[in-house]
Amino acid sequence: MSVLRGLFLTSVAALAAQSAVAQDLRTDALDYFKPLPSTVPAVADNPITEEKIDLGKALFFDPRLSASGVFSCYSCHNLTTGGDDNMETSVGHGWQKGPRNSPTVLNAVFNEAQFWDGRADDLKAQAKGPIQAGVEMANTPENVVATLSSMGDYVTWFTDAFPEDGEPVSFDNMAKAIEAFEATLLTPAPFDAWLNGDDAAMTEDQVAGLGLFMDKGCVSCHSGVNIGGEGYYPFGLVEKPGADILPEGDRGRFAVTDTVDDEYVFRAGPLRNIALTAPYFHSGKVWDLKVAVQIMAESQLGEVLSDGEADQLVAFLGALTGDMPEIVTPVLPAETATTPRPSQDILPN
Amino acid sequence: MSVLRGLFLTSVAALAAQSAVAQDLRTDALDYFKPLPSTVPAVADNPITEEKIDLGKALFFDPRLSASGVFSCYSCHNLTTGGDDNMETSVGHGWQKGPRNSPTVLNAVFNEAQFWDGRADDLKAQAKGPIQAGVEMANTPENVVATLSSMGDYVTWFTDAFPEDGEPVSFDNMAKAIEAFEATLLTPAPFDAWLNGDDAAMTEDQVAGLGLFMDKGCVSCHSGVNIGGEGYYPFGLVEKPGADILPEGDRGRFAVTDTVDDEYVFRAGPLRNIALTAPYFHSGKVWDLKVAVQIMAESQLGEVLSDGEADQLVAFLGALTGDMPEIVTPVLPAETATTPRPSQDILPN
Repeated sequence: MSVLRGLFLTSVAALAAQSAVAQDLRTDALDYFKPLPSTVPAVADNPITEEKIDLGKALFFDPRLSASGVFSCYSCHNLTTGGDDNMETSVGHGWQKGPRNSPTVLNAVFNEAQFWDGRADDLKAQAKGPIQAGVEMANTPENVVATLSSMGDYVTWFTDAFPEDGEPVSFDNMAKAIEAFEATLLTPAPFDAWLNGDDAAMTEDQVAGLGLFMDKGCVSCHSGVNIGGEGYYPFGLVEKPGADILPEGDRGRFAVTDTVDDEYVFRAGPLRNIALTAPYFHSGKVWDLKVAVQIMAESQLGEVLSDGEADQLVAFLGALTGDMPEIVTPVLPAETATTPRPSQDILPN
Repeated sequence: MSVLRGLFLTSVAALAAQSAVAQDLRTDALDYFKPLPSTVPAVADNPITEEKIDLGKALFFDPRLSASGVFSCYSCHNLTTGGDDNMETSVGHGWQKGPRNSPTVLNAVFNEAQFWDGRADDLKAQAKGPIQAGVEMANTPENVVATLSSMGDYVTWFTDAFPEDGEPVSFDNMAKAIEAFEATLLTPAPFDAWLNGDDAAMTEDQVAGLGLFMDKGCVSCHSGVNIGGEGYYPFGLVEKPGADILPEGDRGRFAVTDTVDDEYVFRAGPLRNIALTAPYFHSGKVWDLKVAVQIMAESQLGEVLSDGEADQLVAFLGALTGDMPEIVTPVLPAETATTPRPSQDILPN
């Protein structure tokens, strides 16, 4: 046997061994994670149609859903920058700052519930929140419906999207259409390709990071199709981080359930596209992903990571950065004589 | 000759006569107006390339050009709503209100100069204004360059767009790239099709409105490819409108030239897509296009329009609403450790 041929066979054997290791890791990983589906997921009580998606996209981009005319859903869930707004907490009506960091809308349809404290069951319930919040879009359902009803194209689009509804232009249907559009915002990532069997989709460091992610226990909270977004856990399970990161005034899910056990409890953050959505945590206080990983390891797992481990975990998180959906900006109808005018006034509570 | 055949010939003759009338009107109109070109226009001192357009689109959509991270060019020149923001005057940094109504960016490349008072020679000069204005994006050239230089993709894109420039990431080049993108924002309209020879492109009312537009004298200020955007004229040439519409504090081009003759002088508004860009005038005080037309007729021409005339003029203006360019939202690079963080602080002047 020639030396060359021998070398060739050796490397084939090495590759086969490597592949077997990868296959074992994949089998383990598939116990915890699921790749993104190739189609738009079904959502509860809201059959998704093309008409709803198109209407929802128009609504998502329309600043006239806010009282001021300044903010649309897109403002804080910016589709050019990872589906969030890249600031500590969002700026809303009257330059007020919201209480928590804006989460990404990308793949949000796979979260068990919406908002950091899970107070909305789904995206259609979520969509109604910021529109009415005084510190965000500061609008009312009545004013939204009056706005949308005043424009003929919207009335047509709502009628097409909700053909069996006697009163198609409604706040509920607005929320359903926005949910339908948001359900299309999926970002398949290298990790999905790897889960689906492509060994070459992740680098060695990313694969090593995935191993650590499972071995260290990150996966106990961050699993499923969104690598998080399911289940509620106290921030500071082992050791509470400082008040700079976990401000005492925000007791998390306690505000939803009024149960002492839910103090400082939050929904596990979904980690897809996490490399694009700094700053981190509900408080938005940490800009560096490696630091965020280290804080999580200490506060949730009681584990001090080596520098190399933290780097490999960050590498793995980078494999969750997906291909952005192609979004063509919608063409919105012009206001009419009966469209309520924008008001930047700050009303007393 | 049969009766049918006779009728047929009569209507052929009538159509021919109509067409001759249309042709006369078209010949007159082409003395004043020019249809949009079919290609992106050249601009001074800034050869337009695909690389510059792509970079410019990214910059146009990037809220990190503002100090706060809240505003991008797109915020006040919203491409989903006619290239403007549909409010009296724009809301900027710290919820401050700008002094004048935001003009549309669509087809703005054809304006003789930019801003209501023409204080910027072209779009690249214009782009630098709002980014630095304390009431708008409140940023500095140094901070913008630091922001863009901190993200590898931007550095690559600038290098590709300005390959012969030793220091490609600069405030000047940012402005040039934005100008290149904005030069692509053209909206061919029914009026263009009509000018190009398609009699059926405008309705009878629109054609009648065009006739009035020329006969009454609107065309003396609103002509050229943008039906305005060229030349400076006093608002209130014949009769000054009330201070509700022409606030005394804003003396227009006087602030640019310091010449008494330029008091309350503004650049003639470009009228393409005017039906989409309420409210009207530099003050943004008038929401109804028909009312705006009537005010113009009285203040500039000393003419009280009949109701029917005003309707026909509005119909003609509707023929200036064009097909919106198809814009795919860009995918922007993520911040890095060295990216300056957004600040919503309101600094003293």
